[in-house]
Amino acid sequence: MILARVVGTVVSSHKAPKIEGIRFLLLEKIDPVTLKGKNDFVVSMDSVGAGKGEIVFYVSGSSARYTNVTEGKPADSTIIAIVDMIEKDGALTYNKNN
Amino acid sequence: MILARVVGTVVSSHKAPKIEGIRFLLLEKIDPVTLKGKNDFVVSMDSVGAGKGEIVFYVSGSSARYTNVTEGKPADSTIIAIVDMIEKDGALTYNKNN
Amino acid sequence: MILARVVGTVVSSHKAPKIEGIRFLLLEKIDPVTLKGKNDFVVSMDSVGAGKGEIVFYVSGSSARYTNVTEGKPADSTIIAIVDMIEKDGALTYNKNN
Amino acid sequence: MILARVVGTVVSSHKAPKIEGIRFLLLEKIDPVTLKGKNDFVVSMDSVGAGKGEIVFYVSGSSARYTNVTEGKPADSTIIAIVDMIEKDGALTYNKNN
Amino acid sequence: MILARVVGTVVSSHKAPKIEGIRFLLLEKIDPVTLKGKNDFVVSMDSVGAGKGEIVFYVSGSSARYTNVTEGKPADSTIIAIVDMIEKDGALTYNKNN
Repeated sequence: MILARVVGTVVSSHKAPKIEGIRFLLLEKIDPVTLKGKNDFVVSMDSVGAGKGEIVFYVSGSSARYTNVTEGKPADSTIIAIVDMIEKDGALTYNKNN
Repeated sequence: MILARVVGTVVSSHKAPKIEGIRFLLLEKIDPVTLKGKNDFVVSMDSVGAGKGEIVFYVSGSSARYTNVTEGKPADSTIIAIVDMIEKDGALTYNKNN
Repeated sequence: MILARVVGTVVSSHKAPKIEGIRFLLLEKIDPVTLKGKNDFVVSMDSVGAGKGEIVFYVSGSSARYTNVTEGKPADSTIIAIVDMIEKDGALTYNKNN
Repeated sequence: MILARVVGTVVSSHKAPKIEGIRFLLLEKIDPVTLKGKNDFVVSMDSVGAGKGEIVFYVSGSSARYTNVTEGKPADSTIIAIVDMIEKDGALTYNKNN
Repeated sequence: MILARVVGTVVSSHKAPKIEGIRFLLLEKIDPVTLKGKNDFVVSMDSVGAGKGEIVFYVSGSSARYTNVTEGKPADSTIIAIVDMIEKDGALTYNKNN
């Protein structure tokens, strides 16, 4: 899974019927140490109610269909976790509540 | 899913029988902030009636088979949404009706 | 799907039993505008009788198994169309019969 | 599969129900010759009890669901082996017990 | 499928039970014209008895499970052919028996 920050939303009124009602979030991949955005973006379906600015990780490929929200749907990227903490080499690089 | 602009068409008269009758669109991936093309192209099957110049997002991998148009077919890229708006950090970077 | 040119052949006498009798073509990915090779190569199974020098597109991932030739086989890249024309922004960048 | 070093942990209290109870490890991909980190990170589910600093390899894509820990779950990266030795051209580039 | 050279072995005593007894080979991807290594490595499961120094091609993704050796296992890269010859533009760039 890949770490990313929720930076926006993508709106579509004309889309495949199976994906009606799903939220499409714009994610920017981040460096897990500096937390800086990599200027590399992906549109991801939201299965956990992620909000703007939050750090999340998403799952790619066929496993993007393995959530309650995306089962049987044409998804290749689904947010499956809102991140509380990232620890590297014993130190926290990210702590949501700080 | 990845944001891209419909920039052309690919025509093939000699192809796998399963993909007869499907439209193959040439997509150029875009930066979701500047909307500029990245000079990175993919041929995508169209499941939504996308037109030239429109910004869309497409799904890759096995999920490209999860639309009415592509079910059971050898697809690894299918357009599943025509984009109306892209919002980043509270501002619209793209508004189709403007 | 990705556009590429058939540039060669790969021969193997010792291989997985399931892929006996399949043609392995060497493809070079191309820029769809200039048609130049990108010096990026892939070995692809042929499901359409593609010939040397032809421009084709191939499908990757699990969908590479979704042709008559490759069903149930360990394929991750299969040629599914011989290209006649590539049109970009209203102009043909490639026309096989010209 | 790709070689990587376990460099940290990712903690999430709000996540897809299916992935409750799974450990999410932060991996840094390594060069198998120099063993140096490539500054390229992935969050991986742990199926083998890997520990900090260990060199492992992980499996990507749908096969990330093919372990006892991850079956049926939205996983696209799962650690499946703790590495004891890497041998290249007849010499060990890594020996865990040295 | 991707062309690579067998350059080494990876040994693991602590691994997912499903992959017990499988050989893990270290592959270096090669340029199919110059045959030079690209310093880009992957760990691949061996389904054909490949040996050190041999040029092979491997299959990635879910199709890596479609061999007798890897069926049902967490594999994302499996060697499926030992290469005898690579021909490009009418000339052999590689001939195993020369």
